[in-house]
Amino acid sequence: MSSWTYAKAGLDLSKHWEMHRYARQLAEEIARELGIEVRESGGYATSIRVGDLELCLHIDGVGTKTLVLEKLGKLEVAGWDCVAMNVNDVACGGFRPVALVDYVALPSDDVETFSKVMHGVAAAARESRVVILGGETAVLRDLASGVDAACAVLGTKIRKDFENRARDGDLVIGVESWGLHANGYTLVRRVLESRGIGYRSVVEGVDLGEELCKPTAIYSNLLVDAIRRGLLTSAAHITGGAFTKVRRVLGSELDAKLSMPEPPPIFKVVQELGRIPTSEMYRVFNMGVGLVLTAPPASVEELGKLIESYGFRWWVLGRVFRGSGRVLLKTFDGERIEF
Amino acid sequence: MSSWTYAKAGLDLSKHWEMHRYARQLAEEIARELGIEVRESGGYATSIRVGDLELCLHIDGVGTKTLVLEKLGKLEVAGWDCVAMNVNDVACGGFRPVALVDYVALPSDDVETFSKVMHGVAAAARESRVVILGGETAVLRDLASGVDAACAVLGTKIRKDFENRARDGDLVIGVESWGLHANGYTLVRRVLESRGIGYRSVVEGVDLGEELCKPTAIYSNLLVDAIRRGLLTSAAHITGGAFTKVRRVLGSELDAKLSMPEPPPIFKVVQELGRIPTSEMYRVFNMGVGLVLTAPPASVEELGKLIESYGFRWWVLGRVFRGSGRVLLKTFDGERIEF
Repeated sequence: MSSWTYAKAGLDLSKHWEMHRYARQLAEEIARELGIEVRESGGYATSIRVGDLELCLHIDGVGTKTLVLEKLGKLEVAGWDCVAMNVNDVACGGFRPVALVDYVALPSDDVETFSKVMHGVAAAARESRVVILGGETAVLRDLASGVDAACAVLGTKIRKDFENRARDGDLVIGVESWGLHANGYTLVRRVLESRGIGYRSVVEGVDLGEELCKPTAIYSNLLVDAIRRGLLTSAAHITGGAFTKVRRVLGSELDAKLSMPEPPPIFKVVQELGRIPTSEMYRVFNMGVGLVLTAPPASVEELGKLIESYGFRWWVLGRVFRGSGRVLLKTFDGERIEF
Repeated sequence: MSSWTYAKAGLDLSKHWEMHRYARQLAEEIARELGIEVRESGGYATSIRVGDLELCLHIDGVGTKTLVLEKLGKLEVAGWDCVAMNVNDVACGGFRPVALVDYVALPSDDVETFSKVMHGVAAAARESRVVILGGETAVLRDLASGVDAACAVLGTKIRKDFENRARDGDLVIGVESWGLHANGYTLVRRVLESRGIGYRSVVEGVDLGEELCKPTAIYSNLLVDAIRRGLLTSAAHITGGAFTKVRRVLGSELDAKLSMPEPPPIFKVVQELGRIPTSEMYRVFNMGVGLVLTAPPASVEELGKLIESYGFRWWVLGRVFRGSGRVLLKTFDGERIEF
């Protein structure tokens, strides 16, 4: 049996970055023409000044996790996740999420399916204390064969001095995820299909049905609190691209050395079933760590208590050094990877 | 041959409103719990106060027009339209569009297709003077069989006294559309397919290929200008639901009497091919009038000149009277419809 990668599953991350670069170039041209200053905050939130406020706007979706959720009768998780993905990104950029609009695309005008998704959107909006300012329900006959859920979130700057940049000497903290979250599902689906394994199977004691339906953890309340208290220098939400995202908060003159904890069993099951190289696993999945923070050593005790008060486990993963923008990661099984 | 309606084409607008009501109810509950006042402006823009600013957030997509655009090699129009649909709505609500984020879902990581869509997004952002603060490219293998394009737009209140409410005695002004815009494509597709007519056919002198690819007119610059000058009492963007949307700006104590102009030939061709009842046409399509404005009679001369200076034709469609929230519409062929 051959080994699986994200590219083989049909998703070439280099193409993704090419699209991203093109879109960004167009956006920069327009901002220049309009004479409007657009700021980036660690790649997570792009913002403008409006009146006295620094405002960011962010959009993200759930991807093909919805296909799995639909089969397992858990579409409310799609609604939850599309909010969670956004509020986490916005808060990593140093913004408090304040309002959202949702976008749900469906193959037919199925009120029950829609209500299920919206139920999840509402639950996550409550949890992250964000008002819903509207939404669009797109009935896409002949275009969508399943449910697509996305949100856009508006955020306001939490404090001026948070730049989302790690500093030399910072400790690197990992905060636990609730499982796969909403990334890598195209790869997971391909691996399971290629092995003829159903979504409700139990493999090596891991209940796939349960794992594949777990919602994405909402870190935004924790992040807003920690940033307000001045405990963090940077925050990276581990989503598509996984630990390559830590590069964004390093800039070109720092390295981060991380030693990763043992991932929850679901990650090992997916890896073994797909014979996925370990380095690919850390490029695609959160491997049990959904959020990577950097903080001065003096803040870590208070930060750790704060993380626990929000109900999350955490680890000191490593440290930030002078370097050249590299993430030097030791995997749970001792392999050394450089991003 | 039987006659076509939107419901028969698979889109039941009453179900759409049911979904809309459910979503709105959830949104209202959350706003109440969070103690945040959410304001509606004629159903087009929902807003909150942040600091000293009144901000709205709006989201909309292009629907299945993208399927037609893809076949005709014109996906840049999908990008343009997703911006146009949003900035028009936001400006109808009395907000100046300032920033957007785009959401493009594709069945594969096709950089060329994506770039084409983004090209249109950028052109429309330039035209409407809106910065792009980011976007999401979702590769939805097995979920999307075509391109889905949506945008979310942030707007700031233009002036406090614009409530998007018609007043007794106002004249009703219609501003020309550029054709079908981005609504009713599911019905158009079904009608053409049922008759075996290709998207590039010429029917009764109407070049379908050309008509089906026409972009949505951007009215936001005109609207911001007209609202700033205090010329309008209300504005209704004629999209999904078409002229039923005029009800939103009437409230429960006014009626609007409208006499509609002759629609461009494409609307008549679609109607004849599908044997679509005239009343259904005015429920689904803009029928050549993409924007309905109300203004005091004393403003109409200045307003008319302003509309023309933005390159649009216009008509006085009728008047606003004391009543009960009804739109009393006389169709181009003399039928009387009540919404």
